[in-house]
Amino acid sequence: MSAVPHFRRMVVVGVGLIGGSLALACREKGIVSEIVGVGRGEGNLRDAVALNIIDKYTSKIEEAVKGADIIILATPVKSLVRLAGEIGPYLSPGAIVTDVGSVKGSVVRIEDILPSAVHFIGAHPIAGKERSGVREASSGIFKGAKCILTPTAKTNPEALHAVQSMWEATGARVIQMDPAKHDLIFAAVSHLPHIVAYAIVNTLLDLERTEKGVISYSAGGFRDFTRIAASHPEMWRDICLMNRENIIGMLEQFEGSIARLKSLIQSDDAEGLYREFERAKQVREKL
Amino acid sequence: MSAVPHFRRMVVVGVGLIGGSLALACREKGIVSEIVGVGRGEGNLRDAVALNIIDKYTSKIEEAVKGADIIILATPVKSLVRLAGEIGPYLSPGAIVTDVGSVKGSVVRIEDILPSAVHFIGAHPIAGKERSGVREASSGIFKGAKCILTPTAKTNPEALHAVQSMWEATGARVIQMDPAKHDLIFAAVSHLPHIVAYAIVNTLLDLERTEKGVISYSAGGFRDFTRIAASHPEMWRDICLMNRENIIGMLEQFEGSIARLKSLIQSDDAEGLYREFERAKQVREKL
Repeated sequence: MSAVPHFRRMVVVGVGLIGGSLALACREKGIVSEIVGVGRGEGNLRDAVALNIIDKYTSKIEEAVKGADIIILATPVKSLVRLAGEIGPYLSPGAIVTDVGSVKGSVVRIEDILPSAVHFIGAHPIAGKERSGVREASSGIFKGAKCILTPTAKTNPEALHAVQSMWEATGARVIQMDPAKHDLIFAAVSHLPHIVAYAIVNTLLDLERTEKGVISYSAGGFRDFTRIAASHPEMWRDICLMNRENIIGMLEQFEGSIARLKSLIQSDDAEGLYREFERAKQVREKL
Repeated sequence: MSAVPHFRRMVVVGVGLIGGSLALACREKGIVSEIVGVGRGEGNLRDAVALNIIDKYTSKIEEAVKGADIIILATPVKSLVRLAGEIGPYLSPGAIVTDVGSVKGSVVRIEDILPSAVHFIGAHPIAGKERSGVREASSGIFKGAKCILTPTAKTNPEALHAVQSMWEATGARVIQMDPAKHDLIFAAVSHLPHIVAYAIVNTLLDLERTEKGVISYSAGGFRDFTRIAASHPEMWRDICLMNRENIIGMLEQFEGSIARLKSLIQSDDAEGLYREFERAKQVREKL
């Protein structure tokens, strides 16, 4: 556990579930004096003030970031590089910019876009809820959750230390990782399962055209998939496009697994099927 | 709702979660005088007597079924046709044989194996728990659940009525369906999702060989798959082999859905991806 930093002014760009929860947790731990929200929806920002998540808000991001010592970019992952470019000229020397995005490889190039006296730290807290939005924000959602930081050779050690300490203060378990490794791992454990859930739900929607009512028979297994596939379409579209190479690679591996099972079924290979199913079962016991 | 039947002697072959729960529910509703359990594990059968699920037990199936008016085959789906052949010569005229298996097309040929004075009704209650075994049995698990009956042109109407009334007494909603249609629908809503869960878990196990620790990063999405893939390997092996044609067909449809998403990602088609993901999301809202 590192010494806890103190921020005079934190700017949260995108005050939703994650940005709002981080603001709440930082406030609760007393590690920030003033929190300014930036966003496009004024109703949402007004709610955030009413919920005591932020102190004030603005839609003018350049004004908000002037004099701020930490800027949390909690907007969709696709917007991060653009936003960094927009705020760069207005940031004070020594300011820290960090994010909460699910893709890191194409995001860490923000460090090349920002002025050299400003520090970027890529971050990905593995937390969430089925529902999103600032009204769902809660200071406890990071407790015990992993938060991946993705420093590079260029990363400023003090800025890294400050961001790590901030996340540790929220109760998260911080892990440092190479951005490329992060994207490979999350292509496997998160992006692939979501894409597969979308594919299976769409397979049944296609079947519903000729077999009316088929979906109404869905029990345990399929219902879990529909829940996963009910995530934000915009977010998953952007993740797919921003982590394309890794996701394509994982989809190819997965297609191999499906083809293997299909071939075992086709060739009536009871022993081979048992082996494949038994192997999968053990993962649950390990987790 | 039909008039409730009364059985003098019910034989439950395979006293596990489903067989035991059905016995309990029938006893609770007073529709059976005596319940005899048949199985291979004596410890399990002794538990079933202690739990007041069955009155007595035997390992000699031929003796048990003599004079019984209803025989519930609640053993693995692969054993059903063989068991029907074994008990056929010992059954009394008018006896009803029924099952609880997840595959029906290859099971309803039991009606050709049994003596002509004995009636077979294929049944599939859509109920279960994460844990199996007679100690998990509970009379309430069928309440509100669907139970599919698969009569054929040869089915005896009185026997069908008796089995339907029995299931309705447990609180299940009975639906009659052609056996072939049953197998197509359950290939889609149940068998495909389970096979896909096995495939995705095995994809990650393969990756774990080169990326040690990758599975430890799994969050929401992947964890749901591991739970589904922790089902009984024997049961899923048998289902795969007994519903092969439909499952292969569904796997091919699913491979098409995966290929379509992969191609949209590869060609950077943001609009197409959004459309596919948005479409899947709506199913959840409908369910």
